[in-house]
Amino acid sequence: MTMENFVLENPTKIIFGKGTVGTIGREAKQLGTKILFLYGQKSIKNNGVYDEVLASLNGSGISHIVEHGGVKSNPLLSHVRQGIKLVQKDNLDCIVAVGGGSVIDSAKAISAGALVEHDVWQFFKGKKSIKKSLPIATVLTLPASASEMNSGMVITNDDTGYKLGIGNKLLFPKVSILDPTVTYTIPPNYTAYGAVDAIAHILEFYCTCKSPDTPVQERFMEGLIINIIENCNRTLQKGNDYSARANLMWCATLALNGWTAAGLGKVGFPMHMIEHSLSAIYDCPHGAGLSVVIPAWLTWRRKTHPEKIAQLGERVFGLKSAPVKDQAHQCVNQFRDWFTQIKSPVTLTELGVPSSDIKKIAEHSMVQAKLWRLQKYDTQITEDILNLAQ
Amino acid sequence: MTMENFVLENPTKIIFGKGTVGTIGREAKQLGTKILFLYGQKSIKNNGVYDEVLASLNGSGISHIVEHGGVKSNPLLSHVRQGIKLVQKDNLDCIVAVGGGSVIDSAKAISAGALVEHDVWQFFKGKKSIKKSLPIATVLTLPASASEMNSGMVITNDDTGYKLGIGNKLLFPKVSILDPTVTYTIPPNYTAYGAVDAIAHILEFYCTCKSPDTPVQERFMEGLIINIIENCNRTLQKGNDYSARANLMWCATLALNGWTAAGLGKVGFPMHMIEHSLSAIYDCPHGAGLSVVIPAWLTWRRKTHPEKIAQLGERVFGLKSAPVKDQAHQCVNQFRDWFTQIKSPVTLTELGVPSSDIKKIAEHSMVQAKLWRLQKYDTQITEDILNLAQ
Repeated sequence: MTMENFVLENPTKIIFGKGTVGTIGREAKQLGTKILFLYGQKSIKNNGVYDEVLASLNGSGISHIVEHGGVKSNPLLSHVRQGIKLVQKDNLDCIVAVGGGSVIDSAKAISAGALVEHDVWQFFKGKKSIKKSLPIATVLTLPASASEMNSGMVITNDDTGYKLGIGNKLLFPKVSILDPTVTYTIPPNYTAYGAVDAIAHILEFYCTCKSPDTPVQERFMEGLIINIIENCNRTLQKGNDYSARANLMWCATLALNGWTAAGLGKVGFPMHMIEHSLSAIYDCPHGAGLSVVIPAWLTWRRKTHPEKIAQLGERVFGLKSAPVKDQAHQCVNQFRDWFTQIKSPVTLTELGVPSSDIKKIAEHSMVQAKLWRLQKYDTQITEDILNLAQ
Repeated sequence: MTMENFVLENPTKIIFGKGTVGTIGREAKQLGTKILFLYGQKSIKNNGVYDEVLASLNGSGISHIVEHGGVKSNPLLSHVRQGIKLVQKDNLDCIVAVGGGSVIDSAKAISAGALVEHDVWQFFKGKKSIKKSLPIATVLTLPASASEMNSGMVITNDDTGYKLGIGNKLLFPKVSILDPTVTYTIPPNYTAYGAVDAIAHILEFYCTCKSPDTPVQERFMEGLIINIIENCNRTLQKGNDYSARANLMWCATLALNGWTAAGLGKVGFPMHMIEHSLSAIYDCPHGAGLSVVIPAWLTWRRKTHPEKIAQLGERVFGLKSAPVKDQAHQCVNQFRDWFTQIKSPVTLTELGVPSSDIKKIAEHSMVQAKLWRLQKYDTQITEDILNLAQ
């Protein structure tokens, strides 16, 4: 076992730094002339980003702009379907997505769904594959999902209650604009949830990779976790610390843009698999759900696979000289303690989820488990993990 | 001072792993139908790569193939000009470059030079800028330069004796195939020189970056240096250790593909500036020249800027608790000792360069210094640095 063969091709152009939001017009104009302008709730109207994007689009001579606001976190299929209708009605040729992962994921679903006659959910069920898509430009407002530089998307079906994720290389945004100053106004809880999400992406790769000889990727990922923790702490001290916001923003992108994963071979996303059911059923923030699942999953995992978790403890938290099982245990505690410190929940109770629902959650997660081919995770194992989150 | 604004766009598709050389035909066919097949000396005929590439190209239905072998290390402008004539004569539309950085850099020069009426050297002198280029597919045989995934090229003018490097975003290869098994037959000295070159790329960024708050990039680079050292050592123990060859190959690409540099702002390449004169005048291997220049430059640098070098010493070599100046000193010694251990030269004498030539070398390097805007490096400072390499 060794580094696995891989193909890496990430065509997204990143424009990073303060004062870059105003480049959206120039960039979008290279992609299309009739724009679907997709965004979320009120935050971009409050912090001026909405006005700046519109002014930049108009200033670049783009006059055909159809707005589609109201994307919510855990973005809904019904809203995606409305967006698809808007694109088809006016024959729009480009999507400008301004927001976090929910808005960008919705843009991706619309970009693929608008060009086919069948319903977009067929893609998520694995019944149809994506063959073409509209170009997407994004302005990122919440560092967390890395959707701004990857080819994945996660949507919740509000008819059936299932939250499912898929990927396709046609879903990379053409260009993403990352201005850290835009993130100054993110409240502490969502800053923390974003950091947890980014750490979760790294932990999924780090802990589920089957190859024992991928030290290049490991060092890269350990460095990212160290920096996410350090810079999240700095932003919680001072929300408008540019350096800290910039470092955190870039780490979140790097955590799931394919760079750390290249060569790891097949990895699983069991923590996300379980969390998708939490946020689908209880509509909790994704990062909050993850900070409950991560310590539980790591506790379950360390019993049979302590080595990687112990190594992480040594390199990220400076743990030393304990037997490997103890060191892995301490590493899990370090993560749990840090989540608590940044006020992200670490138990189902704190998340407002009754323990009596564990069986129901485990059963719900089997759909995602099947689609992601996580065969090992039957309802019993998933229940065992969730029981560790009480 | 903080992370600097940046634009990142690296479109090169990487196909990595054992058994991937045979994909070159399929990939090249998507780029063109009339191929310039560029390569170096005998090594690819000895290790079977030449036959495999030709078979793959033919097997994909590409019948118009013009061969242009004989690229030497420190690749020559005269050979580039011959390649340009071959492309223009047959109206070739794609270049397949099989080799190390010298072959790939030559391919880049041909790809831009074949589409203009003026001489290709005008680009290197900064008199003309590149506006278009032919598509390039590469099969990498020597991990070192990262030219397989970046937009830079370095060519030596055999009329004037100057070795100059430039970059342009049109010079990214479209696709690069990295098969670690191809590197099994690289002899120990060239394996070592490649590792030194990759480390030099990281050190240039790490030490010349003016921003004090780029911890994400720093951790990434420290991890790469650790892995280059560990995996180079492994390959020198066992040339056909797949994991070690794979890790070393990927590290060399990551060391200069733009990923570590994003956000560092303006950095300098003073060690390469000086080394280019060594290899231009004495035709020494680039990595061998660098292993002489690195300890000398670091010794000069640490006297005024010990902090970053001391930090590197702590995180890469585990140095601890010395005053910062001492720790920086020890860090330089660690690099020098390791170069000696892998049998790469660390003095001008070992390189076969007489100390009496130092003044001449320093004067020669002023052309590159001017083109790269390294204003600080006048002949006196460059002599001072070279004096530390005796």
